[in-house]
Amino acid sequence: MRDAYQEQMTALNSVLGEMVAEVGREMELATRALLEADLELAEKVISDHDTVTERSVEAEDLAFQLMALQAPVAGDLRSIVSGFQLVSEIDRMGALALHVAKVARRRHPAKVLPDEVAGYFEEMGRLAVELAGNARRILETQDYQDALTLMDDDDAMDDLHRHLFTVMMDREWEHGVSAAVDVTLLGRYYERYADHAVLIARRVVFQATGKTPEQLLDAS
Amino acid sequence: MRDAYQEQMTALNSVLGEMVAEVGREMELATRALLEADLELAEKVISDHDTVTERSVEAEDLAFQLMALQAPVAGDLRSIVSGFQLVSEIDRMGALALHVAKVARRRHPAKVLPDEVAGYFEEMGRLAVELAGNARRILETQDYQDALTLMDDDDAMDDLHRHLFTVMMDREWEHGVSAAVDVTLLGRYYERYADHAVLIARRVVFQATGKTPEQLLDAS
Repeated sequence: MRDAYQEQMTALNSVLGEMVAEVGREMELATRALLEADLELAEKVISDHDTVTERSVEAEDLAFQLMALQAPVAGDLRSIVSGFQLVSEIDRMGALALHVAKVARRRHPAKVLPDEVAGYFEEMGRLAVELAGNARRILETQDYQDALTLMDDDDAMDDLHRHLFTVMMDREWEHGVSAAVDVTLLGRYYERYADHAVLIARRVVFQATGKTPEQLLDAS
Repeated sequence: MRDAYQEQMTALNSVLGEMVAEVGREMELATRALLEADLELAEKVISDHDTVTERSVEAEDLAFQLMALQAPVAGDLRSIVSGFQLVSEIDRMGALALHVAKVARRRHPAKVLPDEVAGYFEEMGRLAVELAGNARRILETQDYQDALTLMDDDDAMDDLHRHLFTVMMDREWEHGVSAAVDVTLLGRYYERYADHAVLIARRVVFQATGKTPEQLLDAS
């Protein structure tokens, strides 16, 4: 019984890992579509998005099977519940990559980003993809020590996000309100994407230890 | 056993109902703080926010107890899992109300909103509070027919949100980039708040029937 549980739980975490790899790829392509005003890439992200939605349903089904079939004990239940919450986080990351692709498509053939902020988005995109890669790793290893080090890993993203506002507020911003609105929304999408990646780390800590990161750190 | 389950499930839904009432109040006060540049109100929303966080922990504990103690059957498990997901939705609504209050505080004593968009936010605030009220009602009644009618209830919010962009893109917008950035972010907060309220309706449909709204509508 216990072995069957472990096996199915590993299968669930593996689907979650693949999902987060997929939303990492989506954000990578969406960022390129945005920076290069590449309509074809933007369309690809938009049409590939269904894959994430389908995998979400698959992951939730696996989690329900785990619950219903294995009559899990308390600690296992917490892990399974985390599984459902992880699906939501990853789904949301996919939706945010989709938003980026849609902005790129809406403005095509024009570039969305004035040159002076393009570099910020290149870096935010790189960070987003890196965070997704880290999230995938800890989902698969369930290494909570590793997860603890990732919990504040969105600081660099937050810094970039703040700088972005400084650039727009500058008197020398000459791209008007329309570009500022796009940049504001896009900045928010990347920031939220990073938030969700970091929440994955928190949930893995809980899944692996039955404690929140704060409870763990208080105890140490 | 079954009676105990029903009783605890009712208790859980009642806590969720109170939570959504609380985040409705928070959005109401945050909107007033925003429109009237009322620092005291903004501070109140910010300090009251801990209540929502505390109730979330309470609600999750109740859901874990339900799972662990009642050895629930498959349909009940789905309801309990929905309970966890509902906590996340409501938490997020609270966080968005908090964001609104923080913008009001950051700009105090200045008003954040130029006069020509204040009316939009008054209406978006009214809608947000109404949606939270509806979400509370269906959480407490578990009336899935009622929930189905609420599923697209954020159309009015989406319309307002779109109009807001039209106002900012107008050549006659003379409030500069800084105001446009604030208005863009605030618009997004209200829109997302409404999204979450509508997701509550979807989850109640699932909780009450074991089917997604689409599955239900296909079958009818």
